[in-house]
Amino acid sequence: MNAARDRSALVVGAGLLGTSIGLALTAVGWVVHLADADPRAERLAADLRAGERGLPEEPPDVVVIAVPPALVARVGEEYFRLFPQSTFTDVASVKTQVQVEIDTYTGLASHFVGGHPLAGRERSGPDAARADLFEGRPWVLTPVVGVDAHHVRMVEDLVRAVGGVVVRQTPEEHDAAVAVVSHVPQVAASLVAARLLDAPPDALGLAGPGLLDTTRIAGSDPELWTQILLANAEPVDAVLERLAADLDAVRAALARVSGTSSVVTSTDRPVDEAEGSVAAADALREALDAGCRGRQRIPGKHGGRAVTYAMVPVVVPDEPGALARLFVAAGEAGVNIEDVAIEHSPGQPVGLVELAVAPDRVDALARALTAGGWLVH
Amino acid sequence: MNAARDRSALVVGAGLLGTSIGLALTAVGWVVHLADADPRAERLAADLRAGERGLPEEPPDVVVIAVPPALVARVGEEYFRLFPQSTFTDVASVKTQVQVEIDTYTGLASHFVGGHPLAGRERSGPDAARADLFEGRPWVLTPVVGVDAHHVRMVEDLVRAVGGVVVRQTPEEHDAAVAVVSHVPQVAASLVAARLLDAPPDALGLAGPGLLDTTRIAGSDPELWTQILLANAEPVDAVLERLAADLDAVRAALARVSGTSSVVTSTDRPVDEAEGSVAAADALREALDAGCRGRQRIPGKHGGRAVTYAMVPVVVPDEPGALARLFVAAGEAGVNIEDVAIEHSPGQPVGLVELAVAPDRVDALARALTAGGWLVH
Repeated sequence: MNAARDRSALVVGAGLLGTSIGLALTAVGWVVHLADADPRAERLAADLRAGERGLPEEPPDVVVIAVPPALVARVGEEYFRLFPQSTFTDVASVKTQVQVEIDTYTGLASHFVGGHPLAGRERSGPDAARADLFEGRPWVLTPVVGVDAHHVRMVEDLVRAVGGVVVRQTPEEHDAAVAVVSHVPQVAASLVAARLLDAPPDALGLAGPGLLDTTRIAGSDPELWTQILLANAEPVDAVLERLAADLDAVRAALARVSGTSSVVTSTDRPVDEAEGSVAAADALREALDAGCRGRQRIPGKHGGRAVTYAMVPVVVPDEPGALARLFVAAGEAGVNIEDVAIEHSPGQPVGLVELAVAPDRVDALARALTAGGWLVH
Repeated sequence: MNAARDRSALVVGAGLLGTSIGLALTAVGWVVHLADADPRAERLAADLRAGERGLPEEPPDVVVIAVPPALVARVGEEYFRLFPQSTFTDVASVKTQVQVEIDTYTGLASHFVGGHPLAGRERSGPDAARADLFEGRPWVLTPVVGVDAHHVRMVEDLVRAVGGVVVRQTPEEHDAAVAVVSHVPQVAASLVAARLLDAPPDALGLAGPGLLDTTRIAGSDPELWTQILLANAEPVDAVLERLAADLDAVRAALARVSGTSSVVTSTDRPVDEAEGSVAAADALREALDAGCRGRQRIPGKHGGRAVTYAMVPVVVPDEPGALARLFVAAGEAGVNIEDVAIEHSPGQPVGLVELAVAPDRVDALARALTAGGWLVH
């Protein structure tokens, strides 16, 4: 990364992404300055060694505009007046609207390469920043016609410097993609979690891992997501329209059988009710099956096709050192643990740990763990 | 568990739940028989030591009807003719309709205690069974007026014998509860995952942990879930109705701002458009905020209130033994790891492992790991 030693960046916005970029660039030798309208955030980011506070004396190679989507054009124009030679990029999770605003309201169009790192956390702010946030994660760049190739290369260098994987898309392709894989799941998770507000406590006691997973991202910052959804309104609504149509089909199927019994025989009910029940079952099955097939399209680890790991469940006491002993035993068997899922048992001091391993390593792992006295299932 | 030594059960249905019950009861000394219409499943369950194949000579204390919801009454009646003295229970994930069918179509009403263990997996069948599936998990019992107290006690004993935590509810309370915490999340996950069917591969490459979590249960068996939804149609539709109303509100908000730019100033657009944008933002914020607050109501580990763990992120090479070394280091620090999340980095042989620990143990853990040469964030 010697070529990067002389590079410099000004990061505007010391939130999670801006601070993480500062940390990552600093770590590979870039000279980084940080500016934030909130002096507290700016100071914290600088203390975390994400860069030096304030503006650089020399024009930076790249100005990274790490502010909410609605502010990118305005902030970009402001800094373009200070540094008219620099390359500009942003990290907003919507690209079409930002690009339109850059083109319409600013003079920096030929200097601007839109960007979106697919990395983030439920937590926000500089304190949640990590130098490795972008390691191996896709980072979409959306240069449009008219952008100087030099500026595109400069931003690509920055992305690679922080460990990101450059993905080139048009702003429209990007926005349609994130609507499906990120924005609509966020809306769905929030809508499901909102149903818990009027549920009695006894009902919530029945919650299992499925509910936790399905609603995890519902904990994200409502203000940030309001802006994201507003800025990507059309693509999100296009996907929600199809989701709403499927939801209508599910509801119509449920309405068809509401109040009827599922014991269907030719003698104890009219034929048309039985037929309605069959049609309802077909509609529900279709919706559920589409979900199964859709889920199978998500690519797996290491950027390749979806990989199926085998799960090796082991009963582990909920005490310090137990997991360590388990992983030592797995390590001694020479088996690479691809993933771990820990199932909590409410009210019970025993946990079930599922170790995900390559299917051909299951036997070796199970044998080794069993020999070590572990309760393998 | 000495009192259980003489107890006996006949499990009808050697799927995931039936086989797991057989395994768990056998482990604590119950005499278990297993019957399944599918001889292959019955044989596999018996080979797994979940019980003896076929019917017992003596009437069993408890007949566990572990078949799909729509078949419970029919199968119950069949076995009630053979064993009219026994206690009957089921494991169907809907209770009202099963109870109505038991009351209407069978003679076993006074012997029947409806049950639903809140335990399961995406995988089904006897091969996925585990003796500890019910350890510490809630197991709802829904005895109605007219059931003999002896039969209620018998089923409670069975639940406790397999490690379950008895929760008493009416069939209606139960069905409303699972509609919110289980059935509607299932529908939502399937609807979101179905959107991936027509997404281009490039879009799917942008998928992150949020999409994986939100759609995980979409991989469940469509046939089983079709039956569950059919059998709990009214409570599920009641929740979906409110969800659909919220979805409409979100879509209306998005439609209001579609095609407009987010740069709102008093000069470059009409006032009513800016006002519409503010109203849209309010509606979206409200939906997202409701999701946040709903999610916070989910109880945490050990049956208590939601516990907030602190996450300690550590960079770990993706190789055998690395996790083992990490957990050894954590164990040596005397810190109890409450949960583990491994973030895969596509295309990158480095993983980020997040260790969840009690907030007051973060410093001790971070110090110990850093001293051991780990890259702690």
